Amino acid sequence: MIIWQKEKKRGMDKIETYRFTVEPFHVDFTGKLFMGVLGNHLLNAAGHHSHNRGWGIDHLNEAHYTWVLSRLCIQLDEWPRQYDEVEVETWVESVMKLFTERNFLIRNAKTGAIYGYARSIWAMIDVQTRQPANLLTLKDGDILRYVIPAEEKPCPIEKFSARVRMSAEAEIRRVATHYSDVDINGHINSIKYIEHLLDLFPRKQFERFHIFRFEIAYKAESYLGDTLYLLSEKQEGIIDGEVYQAEIRKHMGRPEKPEGETVVQAKIVWECVELLPF
Amino acid sequence: MIIWQKEKKRGMDKIETYRFTVEPFHVDFTGKLFMGVLGNHLLNAAGHHSHNRGWGIDHLNEAHYTWVLSRLCIQLDEWPRQYDEVEVETWVESVMKLFTERNFLIRNAKTGAIYGYARSIWAMIDVQTRQPANLLTLKDGDILRYVIPAEEKPCPIEKFSARVRMSAEAEIRRVATHYSDVDINGHINSIKYIEHLLDLFPRKQFERFHIFRFEIAYKAESYLGDTLYLLSEKQEGIIDGEVYQAEIRKHMGRPEKPEGETVVQAKIVWECVELLPF
Repeated sequence: MIIWQKEKKRGMDKIETYRFTVEPFHVDFTGKLFMGVLGNHLLNAAGHHSHNRGWGIDHLNEAHYTWVLSRLCIQLDEWPRQYDEVEVETWVESVMKLFTERNFLIRNAKTGAIYGYARSIWAMIDVQTRQPANLLTLKDGDILRYVIPAEEKPCPIEKFSARVRMSAEAEIRRVATHYSDVDINGHINSIKYIEHLLDLFPRKQFERFHIFRFEIAYKAESYLGDTLYLLSEKQEGIIDGEVYQAEIRKHMGRPEKPEGETVVQAKIVWECVELLPF
Repeated sequence: MIIWQKEKKRGMDKIETYRFTVEPFHVDFTGKLFMGVLGNHLLNAAGHHSHNRGWGIDHLNEAHYTWVLSRLCIQLDEWPRQYDEVEVETWVESVMKLFTERNFLIRNAKTGAIYGYARSIWAMIDVQTRQPANLLTLKDGDILRYVIPAEEKPCPIEKFSARVRMSAEAEIRRVATHYSDVDINGHINSIKYIEHLLDLFPRKQFERFHIFRFEIAYKAESYLGDTLYLLSEKQEGIIDGEVYQAEIRKHMGRPEKPEGETVVQAKIVWECVELLPF
């Protein structure tokens, strides 16, 4: 807990702590927190951090701007389980002209044990023109006041590495989108994509493995009523697990876009629950 | 707030108050809280109430018992919206040998304005024999200490009325079940059924109406991998809305059960968002 104390001195006002309890319906059949629910809590933590520093969607909407999640990457050594009290810390690692990097630390609120970390990349767009805003000049660069460089507050997981190139052998599932899939803007919500992707895997995948690392890149919006095409394939076997790549496309086979437009791309690193004897 | 004060005198220890915030991803495209998310919060409130009185699943599992939700009915005059702070009160209205009635009041935590009420019916079963337990003798009838009769704490919405008789004209949608649908027991979770049922309705249904009353009866369990058949049809038009009945079945067309086994039945009363001029 020494690191924690140092952080306090360095300016805790840059870090927001968000707390949640792992509810009964928020764990999967193995008793572990659903990835989608964790993702939702991370986005809530991000929302509170932004809001409390004058950068929330509620402030920005007045000025016709909104945050858009571009990438999310979660890596956990251990998964929160039913009734665990979880604390999420979130902070901004860097700000560039068009993107900002926001990191997360996820720990057990009672024991302090760290489950893992997450990284995310966000852009800000003008909701009318859909053009990206310049983060460095908006509000006179106010956002820079909240940056904590990696040297001061490390996020010890790799940055995004997803190189997704689906082959012709990828399995494809067609999914219709419905009422429950969409958010207040009528877009399929970022979390539902995660659920649809994990629903591609059979029961035995979750029995034999747990997810060590999950990366997702949001490339385009899809809307209520769109038909989505979910592609997935094993990229490589690793000594203690499996790596899958996956992609969601829409308008598959539409004449002008024969391959379909890419909506999201993902990479999932599965780790054996138990190491099998050689 | 006079009623509230009287309740306090009558023994607040029988009532549990549970609070939540309506999160951004928990509202639909009209900005209203998803029915499924509300249902989840009600079940959490019930869980806390039971737990804090020695009747939680954590206590009961040791004695090989568990609560089973049999019916849930939600009726709202107004729907919570994004960022609303919501308070749920829950209490036990009655206990019979095999069932107990638990009610809910749902209000805005800031203004005190009541959104609506909910009713639920629960049984307790022995997890090994799957036989119902006698609630009146379990723990020497301790549960009776928590009953607040309807005269003292009214729940001013009708009891369950759902009479579901699907006709041959009902529309049918086949839904495969996946990883995200199931709870820690491997059962399709009670909330996911609600989501699947509401996903039967097209966008315009939610634009023209909101749900005034939703009733669901849980008849049988279904499991990860089961194929579900969702039936729905309009039961009647009413002056300011529409009433639908719906049913979920499994093993549709299996030789020994040609009609399929009923998993849940539901009734949905839709109310016009705006009264159209005559």
